[in-house]
Amino acid sequence: MNYSDMKPREVRALIREGKITGPTAGMCAGYAQANLVILPKELAYDFLLFTQRNPKSCPLLEVSDTGSRFLHTIADGADVTTDIPRYRVYRDGILTEERTDISGLWRPDFVSFLIGCSFSFEAALLDANVPVRHIEENRNVPMYKTNIPCISAGSFHGTMVVSMRPVPHELVPKAVLITGEMPRVHGAPIHIGTPEAIGISDLSHPDFGDMVTIRDGEVPVFWPCGVTPQNVVMESRPPLAITHAPGHMLITDVKNTELKY
Amino acid sequence: MNYSDMKPREVRALIREGKITGPTAGMCAGYAQANLVILPKELAYDFLLFTQRNPKSCPLLEVSDTGSRFLHTIADGADVTTDIPRYRVYRDGILTEERTDISGLWRPDFVSFLIGCSFSFEAALLDANVPVRHIEENRNVPMYKTNIPCISAGSFHGTMVVSMRPVPHELVPKAVLITGEMPRVHGAPIHIGTPEAIGISDLSHPDFGDMVTIRDGEVPVFWPCGVTPQNVVMESRPPLAITHAPGHMLITDVKNTELKY
Repeated sequence: MNYSDMKPREVRALIREGKITGPTAGMCAGYAQANLVILPKELAYDFLLFTQRNPKSCPLLEVSDTGSRFLHTIADGADVTTDIPRYRVYRDGILTEERTDISGLWRPDFVSFLIGCSFSFEAALLDANVPVRHIEENRNVPMYKTNIPCISAGSFHGTMVVSMRPVPHELVPKAVLITGEMPRVHGAPIHIGTPEAIGISDLSHPDFGDMVTIRDGEVPVFWPCGVTPQNVVMESRPPLAITHAPGHMLITDVKNTELKY
Repeated sequence: MNYSDMKPREVRALIREGKITGPTAGMCAGYAQANLVILPKELAYDFLLFTQRNPKSCPLLEVSDTGSRFLHTIADGADVTTDIPRYRVYRDGILTEERTDISGLWRPDFVSFLIGCSFSFEAALLDANVPVRHIEENRNVPMYKTNIPCISAGSFHGTMVVSMRPVPHELVPKAVLITGEMPRVHGAPIHIGTPEAIGISDLSHPDFGDMVTIRDGEVPVFWPCGVTPQNVVMESRPPLAITHAPGHMLITDVKNTELKY
């Protein structure tokens, strides 16, 4: 099955039926994917403000109406409780379980936040002959906790998570320009080279996702990542938060190119 | 006094002292100006969500902490109750008074929303030899209510307000490209020509601001406007909302060029 050429609605149906439970990188070429955070309404203002204050790591694509499992804007009719391959449930900031369906946990006071994903700019990088190693190696993108502080909002505080792609040094400026044109999916890199400068001590052991090969002449380039909210949840310890599992995204009906406008 | 060359902090001091009470267009060249909406906390979630769903008319630059009169990000230490030349107070959606100082109305449950202003891209237009008529004629920019619906959020709903600048027809593409690069201050036009297509029946009578001359060979070009929230307040009728008076903005410490990144 070539998921790359399928329509988002078709792949979401396979996910809903439990036939896809793995990472979504490379699926539905050309369509944006999204990170998920579900919180009770009483925490929603603080989190919405957190995203406003930290738009590079948390560029919002849609916020559901309170209590509604269904999206309207980026994936009309998509059910946030079933249409993502894998979820994580955090209680008091601790990851307590992973599930492939959270419909049994749904509450009428839940609000869903959908956040842009850097997978969207990978097609643009590939089109410009900038390699994307984790796609070449069929792995999940490597993600790292950093020492870069987010701006706090109410009860939410924490540090940024970044995704990393090794880029040949002569292509780094091109990679900055291409991704800088797409701020709704994290935009330009937040850091280039020197992982220790942003608090990453061991590149070979990512905090989320898989390690990829860094070849001679390549520079590790770091982009703000939509897994940041999961790190913030772990640091801020809300009573309950549900997220996607890193790399296991919502595939939307929005084309990546549409996100530029 | 040439306000164009002064620093934002200096002009805000003159405003605070009541020495400037008029429109701020053209003041502090190079620095961004901002629209203001103040609401009680109980309405803040719905309004924050409204801005997320309507980023073209309501691009947020900063949201204050609840109860704080002071800003931190775009104008450190600025007092939202005194540092704007003129305010409007809306009760149940009705404009009940204008003031030059609202410190006497401040409440500990107030939240301030600062929204980008199209004045920011006017310097870029002028630099590229695109004329800005209301600056030439020393008037407030003309603003119009339209039939373009905003996406509702909770109790907030209504239609978009636009600002209008006449542009020589051969310069319209250039004006689109220049402003399209600055989404945090409303970005590209929402409509070009044919005012009746967006519900504007009489260009010569703007709903806010002043009429300007449209010369032969010029096209009226319409941009989403930060006065949209005032129209939404009038249509949605919250018990209390305080805004700036149209054209009478907060002058921030952020350079317009910084808003691109």
